[in-house]
Amino acid sequence: MARYKLVVEYDGTAYHGFQYQKGQATIQGELERALAAVLGQPLRVAGAGRTDAGVHALGQVVTFDGTVELAAPTLVRALNATLPRDIAVKHAEEVDTGFHARFSARSRTYRYRLLTTPTRSPFWERYAYQVAKPLDFDTMAAATAPLVGRHDFAAFSGAMPSDRPTMRRVRRAEWRRSGELVDFEIEADAFLPHMVRLIVGTLLRVGAGKLGPSEPAEMLARRDRARAGPAAPARGLYLVGITYENEVRR
Amino acid sequence: MARYKLVVEYDGTAYHGFQYQKGQATIQGELERALAAVLGQPLRVAGAGRTDAGVHALGQVVTFDGTVELAAPTLVRALNATLPRDIAVKHAEEVDTGFHARFSARSRTYRYRLLTTPTRSPFWERYAYQVAKPLDFDTMAAATAPLVGRHDFAAFSGAMPSDRPTMRRVRRAEWRRSGELVDFEIEADAFLPHMVRLIVGTLLRVGAGKLGPSEPAEMLARRDRARAGPAAPARGLYLVGITYENEVRR
Repeated sequence: MARYKLVVEYDGTAYHGFQYQKGQATIQGELERALAAVLGQPLRVAGAGRTDAGVHALGQVVTFDGTVELAAPTLVRALNATLPRDIAVKHAEEVDTGFHARFSARSRTYRYRLLTTPTRSPFWERYAYQVAKPLDFDTMAAATAPLVGRHDFAAFSGAMPSDRPTMRRVRRAEWRRSGELVDFEIEADAFLPHMVRLIVGTLLRVGAGKLGPSEPAEMLARRDRARAGPAAPARGLYLVGITYENEVRR
Repeated sequence: MARYKLVVEYDGTAYHGFQYQKGQATIQGELERALAAVLGQPLRVAGAGRTDAGVHALGQVVTFDGTVELAAPTLVRALNATLPRDIAVKHAEEVDTGFHARFSARSRTYRYRLLTTPTRSPFWERYAYQVAKPLDFDTMAAATAPLVGRHDFAAFSGAMPSDRPTMRRVRRAEWRRSGELVDFEIEADAFLPHMVRLIVGTLLRVGAGKLGPSEPAEMLARRDRARAGPAAPARGLYLVGITYENEVRR
């Protein structure tokens, strides 16, 4: 028995999110099924980020305890032959038993992808949120800056138990343009439920001129849940990667 | 009654190619159905390129004759609301009645996309051909150069009537790398059936060291159909665009 880490990529379109739910297609459920088939033992995986229904991942990290008699590249190949085509394992390695996908994580990075074209595109249908109307990205960048740092993000959280802490440290939040694609990338120690999509939905209203550029910072300060959002659609959101202690940040 | 030109983008995965076939899902069939619904008249469209089953398009061009009382942006919006999500119209305009999507075309450009990663990727599953083994792109580029120019491409053609001409002028054929993605882009006056996929399949064998770099040129010279290919899979192929007389080349 040892502990293993997997880096997993998935198209979340067909899934009810990462976390196991009885009778629903989930990423965790598919990973556990494939591992059971390949390793011949039932086991549970722990994921670094609980992505919602329809949210994608480029570098989700999971850990599990099990007996693995295969070399890492063989395990990766066997899992990829077993998993559905919309989930793939990029990397596998044995890790220290003190390492845990979720509790050892130092930061998570998410990306939200916009497609800024006048018409919808078949190729981005499931992978970006198309916005036909012009957006003022300079103003959006100005409204984004005050979100960086350690703040109470209650204004940008979906429903959660009222006794849970809502302080989070955002290390980085920036907009990047590449032709018709515009990406919002945000790194934080951890995220509240729907936090990225609520922030993006709010910033899109700033970009469309429906909110003033100082309003996101004011919502944050007032912990004003009622005015944020609406949450941008799940299809534009990607869990890009997880950073751990002693790892070089990308 | 006037003539109209549409520029169309599609994900070809679910279709039996561009050309209408009774009882099969085709791009032409879907376009004609959407036009009939929006314009209230049955009509036929002519396409510039007959893409095969599973082949995509970024800039397919079609023309049709009909009575259109809508402004071009309204027609585009109405068609995109009616068409399936994997087909979209990017542009519409009225054209001279002498203009024909196919016969007026001066050149077609295709792109073949490779994903050069050790493991498959859920996001490129339908949109690129994943090659895990290392490829020698310098040698592939050297083998590509002699294909440019006016040649008899019978060696790189699928089945077609023996009396049809097989001379084609390739204006440009080049490999471009962008991280893990490698694109082969080829522009010619016109293409033979399966020509791009047979050329790519042959060049991939050169890149893997299974064929010498001078062999594609020798096959071409000998009109040697038996040795080319196998055709690379349809999912990596895109019809990028069509160039017409008096248009600026992109």
